[in-house]
Amino acid sequence: MLKGKARAHTNIALIKYWGKEDEQLIIPNNSSLSLTLDAFYTETEIVFDKNFTEDIFYLDDQLQDEKATKKVSRFIDLFRQQANCSFFATIRSINHVPTAAGLASSASGLAALAGACNQALQLNLDQESLSRFARKGSGSACRSIYGGFVEWQKGHDDQSSKAVKIASDHFEDELAMIFIVLNDQKKEIASRDGMKRTVETSSFYPTWLTEAALDLAAMKEAIAQKDFIRLGEITEANALKMHATTLAAVPPFTYWSSESMRAMQVVRTIRANGLACYFTMDAGPNVKVLCQKAEVEQIKAKLAEHFALEQLIVAFSGPGIE
Amino acid sequence: MLKGKARAHTNIALIKYWGKEDEQLIIPNNSSLSLTLDAFYTETEIVFDKNFTEDIFYLDDQLQDEKATKKVSRFIDLFRQQANCSFFATIRSINHVPTAAGLASSASGLAALAGACNQALQLNLDQESLSRFARKGSGSACRSIYGGFVEWQKGHDDQSSKAVKIASDHFEDELAMIFIVLNDQKKEIASRDGMKRTVETSSFYPTWLTEAALDLAAMKEAIAQKDFIRLGEITEANALKMHATTLAAVPPFTYWSSESMRAMQVVRTIRANGLACYFTMDAGPNVKVLCQKAEVEQIKAKLAEHFALEQLIVAFSGPGIE
Repeated sequence: MLKGKARAHTNIALIKYWGKEDEQLIIPNNSSLSLTLDAFYTETEIVFDKNFTEDIFYLDDQLQDEKATKKVSRFIDLFRQQANCSFFATIRSINHVPTAAGLASSASGLAALAGACNQALQLNLDQESLSRFARKGSGSACRSIYGGFVEWQKGHDDQSSKAVKIASDHFEDELAMIFIVLNDQKKEIASRDGMKRTVETSSFYPTWLTEAALDLAAMKEAIAQKDFIRLGEITEANALKMHATTLAAVPPFTYWSSESMRAMQVVRTIRANGLACYFTMDAGPNVKVLCQKAEVEQIKAKLAEHFALEQLIVAFSGPGIE
Repeated sequence: MLKGKARAHTNIALIKYWGKEDEQLIIPNNSSLSLTLDAFYTETEIVFDKNFTEDIFYLDDQLQDEKATKKVSRFIDLFRQQANCSFFATIRSINHVPTAAGLASSASGLAALAGACNQALQLNLDQESLSRFARKGSGSACRSIYGGFVEWQKGHDDQSSKAVKIASDHFEDELAMIFIVLNDQKKEIASRDGMKRTVETSSFYPTWLTEAALDLAAMKEAIAQKDFIRLGEITEANALKMHATTLAAVPPFTYWSSESMRAMQVVRTIRANGLACYFTMDAGPNVKVLCQKAEVEQIKAKLAEHFALEQLIVAFSGPGIE
């Protein structure tokens, strides 16, 4: 019997990952940069045993169906191959998410599973190797291996596409992110499908790739200089450009709801009134607000004039896999 | 005493005009295509007299201030030069707009003024020449010289940048447009400033120009084939691309309010439920819905489930200058 256990936190991209070069290996078309957050994480335990006759997967104490289990099995196969082990496994994952509002992320889930496999099968993978494995489970999961600021270097093959920690002299400890949870009934396009359609049909996509590279370089400079305003401006501009690409897809689509639009406008207004805050959005209607820890309570109070308190979740920089 | 009088209707672009090549002569960076509408128009009377000592401008029976009058004077100067006439003028314009909700357009105003000057000064300008004059007053005014479908050919100089009527075998008579008037308090960026910032800073702007040309060609084909679905799809996609360019401007901006977003979503839902309708938007929060005359009442009823009846204004294809 081989046992392993790991906890991984979710991350939010400040420079977005948008589009795959290789769908199989999950090699992205552009490098991205994220902040790992403390508020959302997954804890996963895995046990391999020669007497097990199948893989069994529990998520939040619920036995998962064949489809979900198969996805996990295929990911664990990567580690079984590496360890030359053919045992089946039982996996127990718990998602720690403040609300059930669609904030559970595959990033923390796949990163935690990668960490648990590494430990159970005594692979002693270093963090870069672990990030490569996690990447093949869910692209952005590779960034959840580390705490703080993380760069996913796009690379060009399985070996070179990996996440690395960005030296920041604890700048991330000065930051906070407020999640505005918007319960829209809007049917969403999975990020996988949204990016595929954008890559294949959006006339703006080639420019996105050029812009993402420029934004990444500028953001690394802002981090090195601990320039929060610049960090925020690039974060917001980069998210808007990513979302603009979907408007030129064929057919066009958007992840923005009217409530997202209202939240973005509220953030702009709070900023115009003197509090430094910047929004970002991913493949869904929720809006995330990047700000400084020193002002987070003031900004949360301003947001609370427009949104219910239970819609507002504050997160700070979180640790890497542990 | 020289007297002239004209009426011109507003037009809504289905392929948007977005960005100037020449700010002075108002030569656009891309050709555009519009539908002239019956619901909104301007009636203008002009009198030139050798005894007048200054230009005087009344809009909706209100004497206008120096700034507004100067703008009109400079425009009339173009006609005075052409006619070799140095008389001052008195101008009376009435805007016929169903509500005061910001739908007054400079397009109908400048086109009507051009028509009135042409008549008063007996210039006998043909419609293309009149469109060139109107263009120098307000770019999109050049399209209001004609009824139905109109193309503003960008050209490359004062002579070649002009509007022409698109042969359509009365296809426009099958169409309708429903204006959804959204009274947002949002402070707007004038279209002049918005396009300037986009041209100068948006990385997506060069692609917009390529796309606008492709969309125009495809739309002319859809008009020739009386293919409403294709016409609507191109209309909506083109508007989204135009608005996407503003998201990549530095700094980014948008004309969309949360109510605009809601209106666009409502249109998508009505369409998904089987009624053919497509939205377009200009440099403001209002949403315009292109549909077929045969379905306009059904679509208006569906919209009325989400918006007050007084927010919904129905327009049909309108005539050219008269």
